[in-house]
Amino acid sequence: MAHSKEMTRIGVIGAGPSGMSLLYHLAKMELEGKHIPDVVCYEKQPECGGLWNFDWRTGVDEHGEPIHGSMYRHLWTNGPKECLEFPDYTFDKHFGKAIPSFPTRKVVLDYMNGRWKTVDARRFFRVNTNVQKVIYNPKENNFTVWARDQVEDKDLPLETFSHIIVSTGHFSVPNMPYFKGVETFPGRVLHSHDFRDARDFKGKRLLVIGSSYSAEDISLHCVKFGAKSIVCSTRSGPMGFKWPVQIQERPLLERIEGQMVYFNDGSSTEVDTIIYCTGYKHSFRFLPDNLRLKTENSLYPPNLYKGIIWIKSGNNKLMYIGMQDQYYTMTMFDAQSFWACRVILGETILPEKETMEADIARWIQKLENATSTVQEIDFQTEYVMDLCHDSGYEHNLDVKDMFNHWEETKIENITTYRDHVYKSKFTGTVSCKHHKPFMAALDDRYEDL
Amino acid sequence: MAHSKEMTRIGVIGAGPSGMSLLYHLAKMELEGKHIPDVVCYEKQPECGGLWNFDWRTGVDEHGEPIHGSMYRHLWTNGPKECLEFPDYTFDKHFGKAIPSFPTRKVVLDYMNGRWKTVDARRFFRVNTNVQKVIYNPKENNFTVWARDQVEDKDLPLETFSHIIVSTGHFSVPNMPYFKGVETFPGRVLHSHDFRDARDFKGKRLLVIGSSYSAEDISLHCVKFGAKSIVCSTRSGPMGFKWPVQIQERPLLERIEGQMVYFNDGSSTEVDTIIYCTGYKHSFRFLPDNLRLKTENSLYPPNLYKGIIWIKSGNNKLMYIGMQDQYYTMTMFDAQSFWACRVILGETILPEKETMEADIARWIQKLENATSTVQEIDFQTEYVMDLCHDSGYEHNLDVKDMFNHWEETKIENITTYRDHVYKSKFTGTVSCKHHKPFMAALDDRYEDL
Repeated sequence: MAHSKEMTRIGVIGAGPSGMSLLYHLAKMELEGKHIPDVVCYEKQPECGGLWNFDWRTGVDEHGEPIHGSMYRHLWTNGPKECLEFPDYTFDKHFGKAIPSFPTRKVVLDYMNGRWKTVDARRFFRVNTNVQKVIYNPKENNFTVWARDQVEDKDLPLETFSHIIVSTGHFSVPNMPYFKGVETFPGRVLHSHDFRDARDFKGKRLLVIGSSYSAEDISLHCVKFGAKSIVCSTRSGPMGFKWPVQIQERPLLERIEGQMVYFNDGSSTEVDTIIYCTGYKHSFRFLPDNLRLKTENSLYPPNLYKGIIWIKSGNNKLMYIGMQDQYYTMTMFDAQSFWACRVILGETILPEKETMEADIARWIQKLENATSTVQEIDFQTEYVMDLCHDSGYEHNLDVKDMFNHWEETKIENITTYRDHVYKSKFTGTVSCKHHKPFMAALDDRYEDL
Repeated sequence: MAHSKEMTRIGVIGAGPSGMSLLYHLAKMELEGKHIPDVVCYEKQPECGGLWNFDWRTGVDEHGEPIHGSMYRHLWTNGPKECLEFPDYTFDKHFGKAIPSFPTRKVVLDYMNGRWKTVDARRFFRVNTNVQKVIYNPKENNFTVWARDQVEDKDLPLETFSHIIVSTGHFSVPNMPYFKGVETFPGRVLHSHDFRDARDFKGKRLLVIGSSYSAEDISLHCVKFGAKSIVCSTRSGPMGFKWPVQIQERPLLERIEGQMVYFNDGSSTEVDTIIYCTGYKHSFRFLPDNLRLKTENSLYPPNLYKGIIWIKSGNNKLMYIGMQDQYYTMTMFDAQSFWACRVILGETILPEKETMEADIARWIQKLENATSTVQEIDFQTEYVMDLCHDSGYEHNLDVKDMFNHWEETKIENITTYRDHVYKSKFTGTVSCKHHKPFMAALDDRYEDL
């Protein structure tokens, strides 16, 4: 059988920060004179931006598709903006002045949109388009995509791609374990995925279940906006922060009876609302098992060479961007995307499968030795830097010192960590303080930055 | 090309009342000595029962699939049970005594389960199984089904069927139109699909948007459980019932500014929560366009011969059960299912396509002439009776007199219509009154029936 020359054609699924970094780099490479392949970026929302879009709906959208967004109205970043600054599009370049280190969500989205607009990436978009199914065709060594135009309410013609990039995120499908009696609770039971506005919980006594970023931030958030009290139930020991008086920690929830909740130390309390901050699941309903990443939220998910190339199906043309647990965020997706572009354009050649598998094993072993927060930050820094070195990404993205400092400020005072200032690694600009401390700032107008 | 004898194999999607009626009739026919084909019934929930299962989750389930259920905790039927009584499994047969005419949801589910248990239908089940895709193969004249075992988290092998029955309901995908400013509303915005427990709205001032059964019942429900006030906004004129003092009607919502809501008569009010009771969309994300029913909520959806056979693709082997707007419910699904079984078993031969199209056109024309509630009830009665005559369904399902009486009791007093008694068409048993009037009965224990 004659082998036809395979056409390179890239299907990107998801136009959030990860997908947009990939489009950005391809478009930028083209501006620099390279020939780039045909690219289609599917996005089920009406706009790019991923989780940074605020959606007033919860549950399912008007087309019956699960809502992607978990964004809440008054979110401020929970890490310093200086740790997610793009070196080739700095905050100074976008804002023209110093802004606080923990901006509101609109500010972050505006910043990212600014970078994306410096190249013409919109031509790759198919927004309001939901990918229903992707399969790999071994004979043809390509992928088929079934997608649907949600607005026109019709199936699109099948499309074929040589490469698929999955950049659909992993903070959309709630992990919501059953607790005995939850079905009898008379108040609202929700997952942080559906949390939109803390003002709805004013005066309420809340049970927050969870011990990571969502639990921490939603608890503070609700205190800020007038919740009466919050009990935070954690499975693996207290978060241990110096909470404001309204927040108390309790151990694992054991059962619920009416409005009474019981913990496994025998204590109990009455609450009005239960908010699950129990995290999310990696979920790719459009992918068959042989292409589907299955992982806990991990700094190094399995079966991904360089945390990117899906090695299980042997074709090396399915890539995942942004699937790691996060200290690094935008810049990590950016390094991953740049590395992926190198591979797609044939500028980086992948090693043999055994070599890739051994490499994955080494990183996973390294991760097992990272048992403290400092070590985890080191790990992810090393991961990001390795991608940069391997791809020739021309900037140094190492911000571990800022991350470590940030972690210390949280331990020092969880209510004031957002009031600290940081210095840009790339411009030296020191951020300014917000005009009000985080816990007092109730009005998040964009203009107040 | 030799034509192989096509094997009859039935794929049923959805084990709610519609799907269960189909399984019931097939199993019953087998008990009566008929040979029935191989049957597989896919159900994404852990149990049969469809919308009658109460799900404490909202939005998406633990597998990332949209939640099917819209059931709320304290639901009572909104029509007399005597209008949905199975003639071959009466209330007397199940309960052994008279029970009230507007039972709670658990009572209804228990009753239906009782009927389903009189035959062995569970052997057809694949619960916790989500159908992702169905296509029709013209050459082979059969259907391929992609499904996923949600608990094992894996793709199932492809299955082939000669017939597909779609019985997935049409009260799961919210219709939730945008109103100017809704994204700024600081309180909770939810669709009735996510409404679970009225006690969560105690003391609140609600805006309910809508004018049909959900708006009516959720409003009363919330008053019953202590909501402070309810403004009901309707697009096409007031429902006009004699509401309790806490409920007022207003015309079309125009815009929302913070907590203030403005109507198109210039009036406005401040509310704490917005509940959309704006209905649902027929949605079949697993079906391609050429097999997919697209319809408003209608007493006679288009392209369905006898309201059942999908005529657009020419194969006549795709059937929909339960897709009509409803006065009749369980008994209509039962008549549809019986009729469908006759066709599947070759006992009823379908006419030519032109004849079927003409028949559909006649019914749609008839529907256009049904402009009042009485006429609509007449229409659907005629529809159900036509199915019964055509299939030899051996019972008379006509309960239009009871429906008309029920409508009158609602106009007379919307808060007491559930306190009326009705007589069983099949046993003559008169229901008993609930031990408390509906508006005073806050504790819905099954034992209180």
